[in-house]
Amino acid sequence: MNRESRERPAGAFLVPERKARIDEVVANRTRTLTVVIEAFCDPQNVNAVLRTCEAYGVQEIHVVEGPMKPYERNRKISQNSDKWLDVRRWRSTAECLDFLRREGFFVYATQLSKGATPLEELSFRNKVALVFGNESRGVSDEVLRMADVRYAIPMRGFVQSLNVSVAAAVSLARAVERRIVERGRHGDLAPGEAAALRQRFYVLAVKQRARIAKAALVEARRRR
Amino acid sequence: MNRESRERPAGAFLVPERKARIDEVVANRTRTLTVVIEAFCDPQNVNAVLRTCEAYGVQEIHVVEGPMKPYERNRKISQNSDKWLDVRRWRSTAECLDFLRREGFFVYATQLSKGATPLEELSFRNKVALVFGNESRGVSDEVLRMADVRYAIPMRGFVQSLNVSVAAAVSLARAVERRIVERGRHGDLAPGEAAALRQRFYVLAVKQRARIAKAALVEARRRR
Repeated sequence: MNRESRERPAGAFLVPERKARIDEVVANRTRTLTVVIEAFCDPQNVNAVLRTCEAYGVQEIHVVEGPMKPYERNRKISQNSDKWLDVRRWRSTAECLDFLRREGFFVYATQLSKGATPLEELSFRNKVALVFGNESRGVSDEVLRMADVRYAIPMRGFVQSLNVSVAAAVSLARAVERRIVERGRHGDLAPGEAAALRQRFYVLAVKQRARIAKAALVEARRRR
Repeated sequence: MNRESRERPAGAFLVPERKARIDEVVANRTRTLTVVIEAFCDPQNVNAVLRTCEAYGVQEIHVVEGPMKPYERNRKISQNSDKWLDVRRWRSTAECLDFLRREGFFVYATQLSKGATPLEELSFRNKVALVFGNESRGVSDEVLRMADVRYAIPMRGFVQSLNVSVAAAVSLARAVERRIVERGRHGDLAPGEAAALRQRFYVLAVKQRARIAKAALVEARRRR
C-alpha cells in the first residue's frame, strides 16, 4: 500500500454495496430514542437487548451495572451488534437518569404492577429513554420515582411478564412506528453526526474485511 | 370431601379473584390466530415462544419437530405457560400445514431474504397461522412454497435477524392490534369452547392450589 492510498478515506476500500448498506444503516440511526438496562441478573439478556436495539436503529444504550456479575460481550447472542453501538456503562441509576434528563430525555419506565399507562398510549414526540429493569424485580424504586411515565405492555394471559428482550423489542417496534407518525421519521442524526458515524463504520467494515481475508488465507495455507 | 362437594364444579373451590382472572384470560383467548414452530435447534427457544404466545392469548400452538433433540418442557423459560396452552406436535411440516389449510388458516411465513411483505402490510381479517423457522436457516423451502404470504419484520441495522422469540412477539403484538381493527376483537372463542376452557382452567388452578398448600405443609413440618 503506498502513501497515497493510505490517506484515502476508509470508504474507498469498500465495495459499493457494502458502503451503500452502511449509509442506509446510518440514515436509520437515532440518538433521540435510547434504552436503559438497569441491573440485569443475566448478562445474556443484556446482549439480547443490544441485538434488538441495533436492529431498531438505537445507537446509544445505557447499562447500569447490577449487584451481579458485570455484563460481558457475548458475540453469539449479541450477534456482534455491540460493535456498531455506543454502550455507556453507569455505576448508579441516579447518575444515569440525571444525565439523560439534562440531555432532555423523558424517562419511560416499564412497570410490572397495576396502574401503568398502556404502551399503545405513549407519545414519542419528544426524546425518550425506555428503562428496562431486573428480570425478576423489574425497575428499581428509584427509577419509578424519577420516571416521567410508568408504562406496561398489555398482557392477555396468565404469564405476568415478557422476557426482557422481548419487552424491549415490542416497545421499540411501537416507538419507531409512533416516531414516524409524530416526528415524521425515526433516523434523525444531524449531518455532522451522520458523517462521523459513517466514517467510523467504514473503518470497522474495512477491518472486518481484513480479518475475514486473513482467516481465509490461513485456512487456505492449512489445507495446502 | 363428601360426595356432594366432589360433584360441585371446580370453579366453586376458587376464590372469586382467581376465578375472575381465569374468566378474563379465557375472554382474551383465540384459536383463529395460531403459531407454527418449525424445526428449532434450541428447545429453549420453543419454551420462550410458548411463553410469548400465552401472553398474547394464542391458545393453540403447533410444533414441528426438527432433526435435533425434541422440545422438552422447561418451566423456567416457559414460565409454566404451556400448561395453559394446547401444544400440538407434528412430525412433518406438510402434515401440519395441510391440517391448518383444511381448517381455513392462511399461512404467513417469516422470510429472511429479500422480497418479503413488510409485517405492517399484513391483513389479519382471516384465520392466520404465523410460521417461525429454524434459528439459523429460517423456515424450510417447503413452508415458503406452501405459504400464502412470506413476510418480514423491517430491520434497520446491520443485524440480519431478530431472535426467534423476539420475532414472534413483535409479530403477535402487530397481529393483535390489526385483529382488533379488522375483526373487532382478538379473543373470540365460541360460548361452548369458552365454557369448556374455563372449566379446564378452574381444575388446573384448583390442582395448583392443592400443590402449593401441600408444599407449604411439608415445609412447615420440616421447620418444626
